[in-house]
Amino acid sequence: MAEQARADIGVVGMAVMGSNLARNLARNGHTVAIYNRTNAKTDDVMRDHGGDGDFVPSHEIDDFVASLKKPRTAIIMVQAGRGTDAVIDELAERFEEGDIIVDGGNANFHDTIRREHDLRERGLNFVGTGISGGEEGALNGPSIMPGGSAEAYETLGPILESIAAEAEGEPCVTHIGTDGAGHFVKMVHNGIEYADMQLIAEAYDLLRRVGGHDPAALAKVFEEWNEGDLSSYLIEITAEVLKQTDAETGKPFVDVVVDQAGSKGTGVWTVQNAVGLGIPVSGIGEAVFARAVSSKPEQRKAVQALEKGRPTPVETPDGFEDDVRAALYASKVVAYAQGFDIMIAGAKEYSWDLSLGDIAKIWRAGCIIRAKFLDRIVEAYDRDPELPTLLADEYFAKIVADGEAAWRRVVSTAALSGVPAPGFSSALSYYDALSSDRLPAALIQGQRDFFGAHTYARVDKEGTFHTMWGDADRREVEQRAHSH
Amino acid sequence: MAEQARADIGVVGMAVMGSNLARNLARNGHTVAIYNRTNAKTDDVMRDHGGDGDFVPSHEIDDFVASLKKPRTAIIMVQAGRGTDAVIDELAERFEEGDIIVDGGNANFHDTIRREHDLRERGLNFVGTGISGGEEGALNGPSIMPGGSAEAYETLGPILESIAAEAEGEPCVTHIGTDGAGHFVKMVHNGIEYADMQLIAEAYDLLRRVGGHDPAALAKVFEEWNEGDLSSYLIEITAEVLKQTDAETGKPFVDVVVDQAGSKGTGVWTVQNAVGLGIPVSGIGEAVFARAVSSKPEQRKAVQALEKGRPTPVETPDGFEDDVRAALYASKVVAYAQGFDIMIAGAKEYSWDLSLGDIAKIWRAGCIIRAKFLDRIVEAYDRDPELPTLLADEYFAKIVADGEAAWRRVVSTAALSGVPAPGFSSALSYYDALSSDRLPAALIQGQRDFFGAHTYARVDKEGTFHTMWGDADRREVEQRAHSH
Repeated sequence: MAEQARADIGVVGMAVMGSNLARNLARNGHTVAIYNRTNAKTDDVMRDHGGDGDFVPSHEIDDFVASLKKPRTAIIMVQAGRGTDAVIDELAERFEEGDIIVDGGNANFHDTIRREHDLRERGLNFVGTGISGGEEGALNGPSIMPGGSAEAYETLGPILESIAAEAEGEPCVTHIGTDGAGHFVKMVHNGIEYADMQLIAEAYDLLRRVGGHDPAALAKVFEEWNEGDLSSYLIEITAEVLKQTDAETGKPFVDVVVDQAGSKGTGVWTVQNAVGLGIPVSGIGEAVFARAVSSKPEQRKAVQALEKGRPTPVETPDGFEDDVRAALYASKVVAYAQGFDIMIAGAKEYSWDLSLGDIAKIWRAGCIIRAKFLDRIVEAYDRDPELPTLLADEYFAKIVADGEAAWRRVVSTAALSGVPAPGFSSALSYYDALSSDRLPAALIQGQRDFFGAHTYARVDKEGTFHTMWGDADRREVEQRAHSH
Repeated sequence: MAEQARADIGVVGMAVMGSNLARNLARNGHTVAIYNRTNAKTDDVMRDHGGDGDFVPSHEIDDFVASLKKPRTAIIMVQAGRGTDAVIDELAERFEEGDIIVDGGNANFHDTIRREHDLRERGLNFVGTGISGGEEGALNGPSIMPGGSAEAYETLGPILESIAAEAEGEPCVTHIGTDGAGHFVKMVHNGIEYADMQLIAEAYDLLRRVGGHDPAALAKVFEEWNEGDLSSYLIEITAEVLKQTDAETGKPFVDVVVDQAGSKGTGVWTVQNAVGLGIPVSGIGEAVFARAVSSKPEQRKAVQALEKGRPTPVETPDGFEDDVRAALYASKVVAYAQGFDIMIAGAKEYSWDLSLGDIAKIWRAGCIIRAKFLDRIVEAYDRDPELPTLLADEYFAKIVADGEAAWRRVVSTAALSGVPAPGFSSALSYYDALSSDRLPAALIQGQRDFFGAHTYARVDKEGTFHTMWGDADRREVEQRAHSH
């Protein structure tokens, strides 16, 4: 069926994310071309949701391309990796100068940089775009993080703005930066999401195992917390999950679920890139580690089979619930501070002009980490766009200072009680490291100079020094840094 | 000067590691060809150390190659990266089938796999080799970790065995595995080294800031520890560094060194690869993070400038010094357990037949992490080569169980006192996670199923399930795992 070019935008890939995004576009008045390699999926969408708006379904990629108005704009919503490359090739063969290919999947931003570069040489626009909010967000308003050229955003921007979530009247989409910036920021978003979920899980675990509350009671606690500063989508759904009773057994839902957390890769990517950029990301790192530990049943069984006592949970101090809430909030500030640091370092490394304030703005609604908290981050970057760390902002500094004693009590209680709290305790260590006048890194520099002649700097004068540790007099010599 | 082919082996690169290795070879009776792009360095070696043995210096790469007996064997000791590739190319152009090119630098094992593959296609042997022990080790006996083919090891092995360190009469070298296995294992060695140094630094910091001891007194503590189970090169040099007084100021040396720890990349690589392999490496991770935090002076200044109180160090319980020693030992067991897990995962991923027992054996002397402790690891893998985690070995399980209460007190004390102890506390969290009957990962699976339909497994039956969270009845449906 030869189509006239009448679609405003196209979507390739009719799995649930793609079809929901297409429906969102159609519902917002766009004429939407849709295509899926397996035609049955396209037909299903037309049958079940054809009434959502004006769709132009195609069974052949040629027809799909022919149905698009110029500049042709198509969003690819398929499996990241080779699947994406295959569809890009199919479109690129048929698209013409100025047309726009959008990858809306969770691509690795290094791939996005490569693809953008390759397609630019062929005169095409390629826009790697982060889309957060899951299936529900795709349908009703996600947070959208497009990279690519400013030229492409001129065409694409208004369309994305019409389907994005809204926060305080503003659409949750902004041009993040060139080439891979959008997917990079989406990666960091997901990394922060890992950290946030891990901290919530630790709060739940402590309140249950030390505090002695059952899941139903804890659902109420999280509902209550969702009324205050911690108000967020993740706290809200935590209450929902804890509230759930398993129909089959009558047990709390959370107790019938196997306690091995899976992952899809973006948390791992965040850690890999963050450490490569020299950014300490203990919050996201410990979250990734915790999921990995949980998924090692043989090791868990082997350690649990050892004949050994386990500590008895210590008596909880009065107000333990408030303590845990304070510890959660302070640890969350650390995790976000580290996450924003990754973006600062990434912007420098890849020459992106990222606006941290704008990124916080578009995370206020639509995405998984949407929260009241993001407003506070927007305000912090309004006060000082060059803030060296979120922890130095007046609001966050006060939150942490107010919660500090409680935070310490909780980490101490967890350690004494045998309840793992890697997120809480690594966040506290990070805060204490930043707060410490002197760090034992000086000793490490001494060790490195001893065994590897790596040299060190002195606190009292410029230069690079090495001590002749092997000689009897251990003389210090100034020298140029040299490599081994 | 056209040379007859009389050298047993050659070394390219006469910086300190290369010249020391060449001298070690010469001292052990080998005729050693030496070459350096800048001829002055070669001349310096001949002038200063020509008496060490039988050297064949060359000023031209052609002469160097001509001076080697067949099969020609040359060890490259130059800057990792492009420098190495350039030298490999120069040698490969001149070498013939069956000749052996050895890279003794700290190469990324992914590069080593690529290089081995490329050179194998040209009929040449390429052996990526980890060498640990610093300058002093290179000269007097390092721990050596060669990869590459078994065929190449037949020629190379006896030469390396003659220059390696010895532990209980055995040379600290073994054929690690094919292609990049040697550099992979060296990377993990360095990662473990990071963790070990960080844990020692935390012990020092706690004993100083909470325990109130000065560096001179702490030097004695570490000397004492070096007589017991913790006996190791790193503990020994820690005592030496702490003992050192700055000649210029009369202050403890450690107090005149800038407390910003540098790094050369292998720690970062270890974390990047470990998380990619799904291995939780909190010990190495927190060590890499701690060095990174220390090297952020602007952030440290900004947080320290905030008007806020700092906690007073809590009263140390009696026997705090013994507590810290126990915490250090238990945390060290965790760090090594995680490090060995990376090797198990790497062996699986890259099809290497790694012998963990043999690797522990060659780390007993010559390298930076050499320690009594490695004997215990050798024994553990003798008892059970399929040990699921070092923590499940009877000796290590007892160490941890005996130290557990002290470990908890130390982590609690650090948290309450405001002294960062990310290595100690993350190790304890890891141990507590493995020891916990149930983990809050079940809640995380619930959250993931809620927002992303990621599905979950049940404890009471096979299958993959998804709850229809959006529907009023929240029905559970069984389904195939599907991707988004």
